[in-house]
Amino acid sequence: MKWPPGCASAGVACGIKGSGLDAGLLVFDEPVVWAGAFTTNAAAAAPVEWSRARRGRRVRALVVNSGNANACTGEAGRGAVREVVAAAAREVGCSDDEVVVASTGPIGQLLPTDRLVDALPSLVARLDIDAMDFSGAILTTDTTTKTATAHGTNFTVAGVAKGAAMVAPNMATMLAFLVTDADVDGAEIEQSLAGAVRTTFNRISIDGCESTNDSVFLFTTGRNEASLPEVSAAVRDVCASLAEQIASDAEGATKLLRITVTGADDDDNAARLARAVADSVLWRAAAHGGDPNWGRILSALGSSDRTLDLSEVGVSLNGITVFASGEPKETPAALSMAGREIQIDCAVGTGAGRASVLSADISREYVTLNAAGTS
Amino acid sequence: MKWPPGCASAGVACGIKGSGLDAGLLVFDEPVVWAGAFTTNAAAAAPVEWSRARRGRRVRALVVNSGNANACTGEAGRGAVREVVAAAAREVGCSDDEVVVASTGPIGQLLPTDRLVDALPSLVARLDIDAMDFSGAILTTDTTTKTATAHGTNFTVAGVAKGAAMVAPNMATMLAFLVTDADVDGAEIEQSLAGAVRTTFNRISIDGCESTNDSVFLFTTGRNEASLPEVSAAVRDVCASLAEQIASDAEGATKLLRITVTGADDDDNAARLARAVADSVLWRAAAHGGDPNWGRILSALGSSDRTLDLSEVGVSLNGITVFASGEPKETPAALSMAGREIQIDCAVGTGAGRASVLSADISREYVTLNAAGTS
Repeated sequence: MKWPPGCASAGVACGIKGSGLDAGLLVFDEPVVWAGAFTTNAAAAAPVEWSRARRGRRVRALVVNSGNANACTGEAGRGAVREVVAAAAREVGCSDDEVVVASTGPIGQLLPTDRLVDALPSLVARLDIDAMDFSGAILTTDTTTKTATAHGTNFTVAGVAKGAAMVAPNMATMLAFLVTDADVDGAEIEQSLAGAVRTTFNRISIDGCESTNDSVFLFTTGRNEASLPEVSAAVRDVCASLAEQIASDAEGATKLLRITVTGADDDDNAARLARAVADSVLWRAAAHGGDPNWGRILSALGSSDRTLDLSEVGVSLNGITVFASGEPKETPAALSMAGREIQIDCAVGTGAGRASVLSADISREYVTLNAAGTS
Repeated sequence: MKWPPGCASAGVACGIKGSGLDAGLLVFDEPVVWAGAFTTNAAAAAPVEWSRARRGRRVRALVVNSGNANACTGEAGRGAVREVVAAAAREVGCSDDEVVVASTGPIGQLLPTDRLVDALPSLVARLDIDAMDFSGAILTTDTTTKTATAHGTNFTVAGVAKGAAMVAPNMATMLAFLVTDADVDGAEIEQSLAGAVRTTFNRISIDGCESTNDSVFLFTTGRNEASLPEVSAAVRDVCASLAEQIASDAEGATKLLRITVTGADDDDNAARLARAVADSVLWRAAAHGGDPNWGRILSALGSSDRTLDLSEVGVSLNGITVFASGEPKETPAALSMAGREIQIDCAVGTGAGRASVLSADISREYVTLNAAGTS
C-alpha cells in the first residue's frame, strides 16, 4: 500500500520486541490537519494522553512502537513520551507539539526509550511512500499486516491498522493510521472520523476487554479538493475494511462471527444486544467447535435486555432459522458452521433499530497466547 | 450431608444425561414455607417460570433434573413442566401447586419427560435424610458434589449446589437447595435468602454469562424456634461455602481468584469494579499462566469506571504491592502465582465501598469443554 502524496513512512527493528519490526515513523512534508479517536479507559496510556492533548494542532510526525504499551507506567512513562517526542522533533525538524505518538504491547513495563530514540535516524533515512515496513512495525500478536485504500473522485484515503487481542467496544488494543490528501478542515475531518469509528472499529468486540492504548488517527495533507460526504464515505470504507481484518485476525481466532441484530428500539440498543452475543465466551467457544448452540445466543440476549419478549425473538445461523417467535425450530442437517465465517442474525422485536458487530471464536490458542503474557 | 428432620431426598439415573445420576427429588413431611431467588434473564427457563409463580405458597416437593435446561423450549417446554409436576404430585400425594422444579443442562432441547416421570416411583422409594444421591443428580460438568451445613443454637441449615460454567453476577447456571428447620415465616425467610444471595452467589463471576436457569431455593420445616439474625447468618454461611465451592470447581479452572475492591464510593460500585476484573478474559488467561500481568487488572478497572483516578489506585497480588498511587512497583521475585488461589486486592480511592468477588482462571480445558457443547 502507498500513502497519498506528501506522506512517507518507515519501520525498523529497534529491539523493544524480541524480534521483528517494532518502531515506526510517519512524516508529512508540511504540518497537517488531523483527527483522533482515543480509548476512553481511565487507565489510558501515556502516549494516548500526549496525542489527545495535541488535538486541534497541525502535526508533522507520528512515532509508534509495538512491544510495549507504555501504559500504567506513571510519571516515568510520561517522561519517556516527552523524551521520544523531543528526539523525533529534532530529527524531523519540527516542534515537540507537532509530534504525536502511539504504543502497543504489554501494559505496565517501562518503555526502553533509548532504543526508540536511537532508531530515529535510520527511520528518517528510510522514509518512503510505501507503507509496508510501517504496517509491520505496529503489529503485536497479529499474524498479518492490515491495510486498506479507498479512492474518491479526486483523492485517496489509505490506512493501516493492528489488532489482535483486547479488542472491544470503543476500540481496544488496536491502532489505526489513516492518511488522505482530501482538502477538508479540522472540524470536518473530526466529524468524518467519529462517524466512521462509531460504525466500524466500535462495532468489533473480540473479548470485551477495552485497551489502555487504542487510537485511530486520520491525517490529511489537504492537497486535493474533495466533497465532505465523499471523503466521509471513503474514510468509513477504509475503517470498515481494517475493522474486518482485525476481527478476522483476532488472537487464536479460526472463525469470523458477524452478528446482526434487527428490530431493536434503536441502533444503540441493537448494538448493545449484538455486543452481548459477541462477548459471550460460551457462545464463542461453541462457535469454535462448530456447535450451533443457539441457546447461548438467547441466553446472552436475555441477560443483556431483561425486558426482551422471547415470543418476538428469532435467531438464524448462516441463514437457517433455529428459533422463531419463542419456539425452537428443528436444526436442519444442512446447517453447517464449519466455514471461516458464521452469520448470526437476531430479530428481537418490531423496532427500527439495527446494528452489526464483528467478533471471533475463542480457541485454546487464545488462552495459550494470553497465559504466556505476550500481549 | 444430612438434611434437617422433616426432609428427605433421592437421586437416580433416568437417562437424560448419557450416564450418571440426573434426576432428583426433595420431599417434605408437611407443606413448608420457602423462599426463592431466580435468574433475571429474559430467556428464563420453563421450570424457573413455574417455580417463580409458586412463591408464597407452601410446597411439599421439588423435582430437579440435570442434562437438560428446558430453556428456550417454548410452549412444549412449559407443557413438559406441567407433566412432570402432575406426575410428582400424584406420586408424593399433594397438589400440583405444591411442587416446584429446577433444571440444568444444554439450552433449547426438549425435555424427555417420560424418563423423568418414569423415574419418580424409584425416587420416592429411595427417599432418605442423606443428601448424597440428590447432590450428585444435579451436577453437569461439575467435578465434585457441593454441600455445606451450618448449625445455629437450636437449628440447622443444610445446602447443596451445582455450578460449572455460565456462572455470572445474579447467579448463573447454578442451582442451590437449602433446607432449615428454623421456625421463621415467609417474609423473614425471603429476607434471609435475598441478603445471603446478594453477597455470596451474586459475587461469583466465572465467565460473565448469566444463565437461563439459575435458582436458589431455601425451604424451612419450621420445627425449631430460632432468632432471625442467627438464621440469616447461618444461611449466609452455607451460601458462602457453596459459592466458593462453585468458583473453585468452575469448568476447566485450575485457580480460584479472590478479587477485593476497597475505597469505592459504595459497595455496589466496588462490586462492579471487582466483577470487571473477574470478567476480564485476558486477566483470567494471564492468571492461568501464573503471569502477574497486573496491567490487565488496571485496564479492566479503567474501562469499567472511566472516571477512575489512577493516582489513587493501588493493586496487590497475593499481598505484594505491584502498583500504587499511579506508579508501577518493581515486581519482586517473591511474588508467586503458582498456587491454587490468587488474592487480588484493588484500592481505588478513599470511599467506604468494599466488595469481594470470586472467579476462576480460564484454561484451554474450558474452551475444549464448551466447544463440545457439553453444557
